[in-house]
Amino acid sequence: MTYSELFENIKRKGSFLCIGLDTDMQLIPEHIKNVHNPIFEFNKAIIDSTYQFAVAYKPNLAFYEAAGTSGWSQLEMTVQYIREKDSTIFIIADAKRGDIGNTAQLYARAFFNNLGFDAVTLSPYMGRDSIEPFLNYKDKWSIILALTSNPSANDFETKILDNNKELYRNVIEKGMEWGEKDNVMFVVGATRPEKLAEIRVFCPDNFLLVPGVGAQGGTIADVSRYGLNESCGLLINISRSIIFADSSYDFAKIAGIKAQESALEMASILRDRGLIG
Amino acid sequence: MTYSELFENIKRKGSFLCIGLDTDMQLIPEHIKNVHNPIFEFNKAIIDSTYQFAVAYKPNLAFYEAAGTSGWSQLEMTVQYIREKDSTIFIIADAKRGDIGNTAQLYARAFFNNLGFDAVTLSPYMGRDSIEPFLNYKDKWSIILALTSNPSANDFETKILDNNKELYRNVIEKGMEWGEKDNVMFVVGATRPEKLAEIRVFCPDNFLLVPGVGAQGGTIADVSRYGLNESCGLLINISRSIIFADSSYDFAKIAGIKAQESALEMASILRDRGLIG
Repeated sequence: MTYSELFENIKRKGSFLCIGLDTDMQLIPEHIKNVHNPIFEFNKAIIDSTYQFAVAYKPNLAFYEAAGTSGWSQLEMTVQYIREKDSTIFIIADAKRGDIGNTAQLYARAFFNNLGFDAVTLSPYMGRDSIEPFLNYKDKWSIILALTSNPSANDFETKILDNNKELYRNVIEKGMEWGEKDNVMFVVGATRPEKLAEIRVFCPDNFLLVPGVGAQGGTIADVSRYGLNESCGLLINISRSIIFADSSYDFAKIAGIKAQESALEMASILRDRGLIG
Repeated sequence: MTYSELFENIKRKGSFLCIGLDTDMQLIPEHIKNVHNPIFEFNKAIIDSTYQFAVAYKPNLAFYEAAGTSGWSQLEMTVQYIREKDSTIFIIADAKRGDIGNTAQLYARAFFNNLGFDAVTLSPYMGRDSIEPFLNYKDKWSIILALTSNPSANDFETKILDNNKELYRNVIEKGMEWGEKDNVMFVVGATRPEKLAEIRVFCPDNFLLVPGVGAQGGTIADVSRYGLNESCGLLINISRSIIFADSSYDFAKIAGIKAQESALEMASILRDRGLIG
């Protein structure tokens, strides 16, 4: 998917919502726990009731790997199901991989070719070698961790380097050098919305994937106020407060209502900015 | 496994060799490619002929994930096979994970409980939150990326922070704070042996996992000269130049010979330092 195709999808749906499929076996409704392929069945129900309101889904790979071989297979089924349901959905492997050389190439092949993801989240610690193999895939995206939403982001990410810029700013500036706005996004947490305004000064164009709305306390309004650009430029991820909003037989319906609420708020913001009619 | 148990194993075997099971389907011998579970069958043959000379194995997860569900299952089989063959072997998941909260907890559960690894490699970018969940497992280890062996380690790892120390040094010092020498190691590449001497000044005790010997140009002699401590304190990883030394029907035998050569060099170094008799 290209930058402009992603923006077109956002405009058409009036939403820049990414739904995090952090499908935790401990948290799914009791009546799903004992079916065959419970992770997939849970995801399928969530996707059916939310895909109209979302432009992206983001399975978090930890939750699938924790279920071993079966989890991996349910991840494959989930990606395929999303594709069949709505071929315009942007699918992100939240893998936070960071490796080099032939290892990075293999991860790229696994996520892009074998599993069919559009994008993968990557850790920048090892530098360019760990990002470049992913940039060689046409129409696929690298989403580089920059400023995350967790408290210990201050351990390293916000430290000032000898060029007087924070580490996360160095990461963003390098990432912009390595790739294009058509294949590089950055992760910036919603818990520091004021930082989004600073970032937009030196990084006006790239999409930002923003976690931390909902359970972690960030808001759609704040993130949009500081982070939106003329092509929207934001994917706001919400996981738990949509997919685990309810644990009854109505869980999927409630998830759909929550997703719709977020999408309506986003549509109103896009309208206010003149990005949709 | 505890620090002292690991040192005991090193002394008993006269080796601090870790063999990287970077089992690349493109590189395994032709006659293995078409058998059922080729990755596992390759590993099994390599393990049979090398386990006497190694104290650790390190499957690199990218190579298993690239093979999808079947790769994940062959990873499980590999770990189990190593355990059965020699229960004293230290088994490292080279996963370079770096995530937080319930995600990190799930990775910890996947690698330590489900798969039975002793250790996992972790990326420190997101700070303490991404390491701590792994430290809660008794007798399990976190191996934190510090100074890696790739050229672009200079993009961020060697940058000076405003405390006048390189980022990788900040990572090591924080890691030493978060854990103990009994559950934290650091990755330091063999391609910068002089850095090992600097690191031993502020990090005398922790084990270092050292990749980059062999194909990448580092040597056992240099790494040992600068990195060895009184409990050995080193695991030197060699992957390709052992497991892919030969691609004929004799591949496993040749791998065994290569592993033995490395182990003999290590035994001689341990003797010279008075660590073994």
